[in-house]
Amino acid sequence: MGEGERKGGGGGEEEAAAAAARAAEQARELQDAAAALLTRTRAEEEALRRRAAALQAELRRLRKDAAAHADSDKVEEDLDRATCLITDGDVASLLPSKTHGAFLKMFLGPVNLRATRKEVQLKVKEEYNSYRDRTALLFLGFPVILLFLRQWLWNGCFPALPVQLYQAWLLFLYTTLALRENILRVNGSDIRPWWILHHYCAMLMALISLTWEIKGQSQPDCARKQRGVELFLCWAIMQGFVMMLQNRYQRQRLYTRIALGKAKRMDVVWGETAGVEGQLLLLCPLLFLLQGFEGYVGFLLLRTAHTGVIPEWQVVVCGILLIAMAIGNFANTVDTLMAKSRFKAKMKKSKGKRDLDTCSSPTGSSPTDSTAKA
Amino acid sequence: MGEGERKGGGGGEEEAAAAAARAAEQARELQDAAAALLTRTRAEEEALRRRAAALQAELRRLRKDAAAHADSDKVEEDLDRATCLITDGDVASLLPSKTHGAFLKMFLGPVNLRATRKEVQLKVKEEYNSYRDRTALLFLGFPVILLFLRQWLWNGCFPALPVQLYQAWLLFLYTTLALRENILRVNGSDIRPWWILHHYCAMLMALISLTWEIKGQSQPDCARKQRGVELFLCWAIMQGFVMMLQNRYQRQRLYTRIALGKAKRMDVVWGETAGVEGQLLLLCPLLFLLQGFEGYVGFLLLRTAHTGVIPEWQVVVCGILLIAMAIGNFANTVDTLMAKSRFKAKMKKSKGKRDLDTCSSPTGSSPTDSTAKA
Repeated sequence: MGEGERKGGGGGEEEAAAAAARAAEQARELQDAAAALLTRTRAEEEALRRRAAALQAELRRLRKDAAAHADSDKVEEDLDRATCLITDGDVASLLPSKTHGAFLKMFLGPVNLRATRKEVQLKVKEEYNSYRDRTALLFLGFPVILLFLRQWLWNGCFPALPVQLYQAWLLFLYTTLALRENILRVNGSDIRPWWILHHYCAMLMALISLTWEIKGQSQPDCARKQRGVELFLCWAIMQGFVMMLQNRYQRQRLYTRIALGKAKRMDVVWGETAGVEGQLLLLCPLLFLLQGFEGYVGFLLLRTAHTGVIPEWQVVVCGILLIAMAIGNFANTVDTLMAKSRFKAKMKKSKGKRDLDTCSSPTGSSPTDSTAKA
Repeated sequence: MGEGERKGGGGGEEEAAAAAARAAEQARELQDAAAALLTRTRAEEEALRRRAAALQAELRRLRKDAAAHADSDKVEEDLDRATCLITDGDVASLLPSKTHGAFLKMFLGPVNLRATRKEVQLKVKEEYNSYRDRTALLFLGFPVILLFLRQWLWNGCFPALPVQLYQAWLLFLYTTLALRENILRVNGSDIRPWWILHHYCAMLMALISLTWEIKGQSQPDCARKQRGVELFLCWAIMQGFVMMLQNRYQRQRLYTRIALGKAKRMDVVWGETAGVEGQLLLLCPLLFLLQGFEGYVGFLLLRTAHTGVIPEWQVVVCGILLIAMAIGNFANTVDTLMAKSRFKAKMKKSKGKRDLDTCSSPTGSSPTDSTAKA
């Protein structure tokens, strides 16, 4: 339109018009190329996806047959290896992902959170671990500072604001942990559902504790009324300490895995956990101790509510939640350890020290991924 | 390993072993094919990305030249079209995405939230709108019910729990809205940063209001002390009403866009907003009224704090936040309307009714995308 109107312009203008037209043409070519690439890639992915689905069905059939007949190590190994390749290899990124779950949908809507590239998935995991590292420090530091200040500055009673800041931070922390763990799950981590559920409970508790009226320094008898807060802070210090140990353990596992993965990613890995067994011996008693203390704090909260020192419903609900979390944590840690020892026994039996853990094993959740959340 | 041990087995077992070996082989082939596809796709994407980057640089140069010389419609149109194709076409999904921003990183870590396919992006937007629809109903219903119950059941004073539930819901709502809007932004929506900032303020306010001690029915003079809550609920009712109108407006725009997009997605669209102009005439006065009321509620909160009826710091901070949000909302709505009228004038001048709004126009934010958040 209006091409003729501008005939009178200088040569520079005509040149500019030509350059602009050329750019528009180039943009159109680029758009066509991109559209073609997307269409072609999608078609090829679809073909691979169909092949993978067929192979998965075949594997399920073979596995059922193998279970019915005498158990043969060679067959099982072949099937494991094939399953590994499909569920943990490059094909995995093409397969329909695990459903995102109500929690992610509720917070984020129907967005795709799955990384197609293995490196990105590992980066997400690595970042999650370093996030846990940073939060563990805060988890340790925050309550220590609060308790310290209470003694040296606040004359034995917390003012409301710092405690509420801490509670708001807890709410934020548990929300982000729950979100990130759900994202890890979508990206193929076999973190146990309980640990995520546990973070939902913790979110709820942090939210409730925010509404919990804190009898500040102006109130008489505040030290006694703040007994619940004090216990909770003690528990948080322990929690922070254990988190740091857990993180060391998890991190070592991930590094091993990345290193091995780089060497030859899809091969089944030998003796991966060898270096971290010692740490687990330290971790487990601490975990049990922490869980016991968690339940005890819950019990104490219920008692303060019962004896009428702090008669608010928030105290009762928080107490119940803490006890429920302690029981669930205990049951899951035990279950995980048993799965680990069953796994070891199986490995001994088959004389290989193959670590199925490098891929989401068909037998269920990976033991090490799930031990380390308290 | 141990191949010889099982020679004595039946024919079925040998068959099973062969089938398992075949499956393992197939899995390996599949893995190789997938790896090859990923590598090839990545290389082709990289090539397109380089071409796009070069073209973008060229476009920037041409645009600077065009601005320096006499302004020519044809040149500008060509440049706009080229920019449109790159920023809104299939190439866009290959270009480095907008940075995710600190908020998303804080909540979700380094996960990629960008949908590569246009349909998915539109679906995310559509879901966001329907989410706003649903929340608008709750936004309207929740405070209406609370105010109704106060009159008919609670004798003029709110008990603490329902109000706190409402505040917790607000915190959740604003968090999800902020997350979803950040995700929309990553996916190419040009929603104004202010509307997201506004939701951060609202999150903070909801969080603070949770810690705000509600003088329950047991307290003397509770009706007067709950004046702040009451005003806030009135504001929420209006907000819900306006949200519903906004959503209607937004939705109509999106539908038009999808319909036109299906016809020929990348072409510049004509007279898209024609059908919704009338609604905007209703929407704007309501928006201004709401913003005025928001500021007024903030002012009343500050006054109650000043006169000592509710002397807590939470009241002061909430009051300041409300006033800041009212001012920001007002400034942004005015700015948006002015951008809209400038845009119209420009369209009239160039005699085309081209709606640049179908692509993130190089001149700045899309006016309609940003009007409709209060």
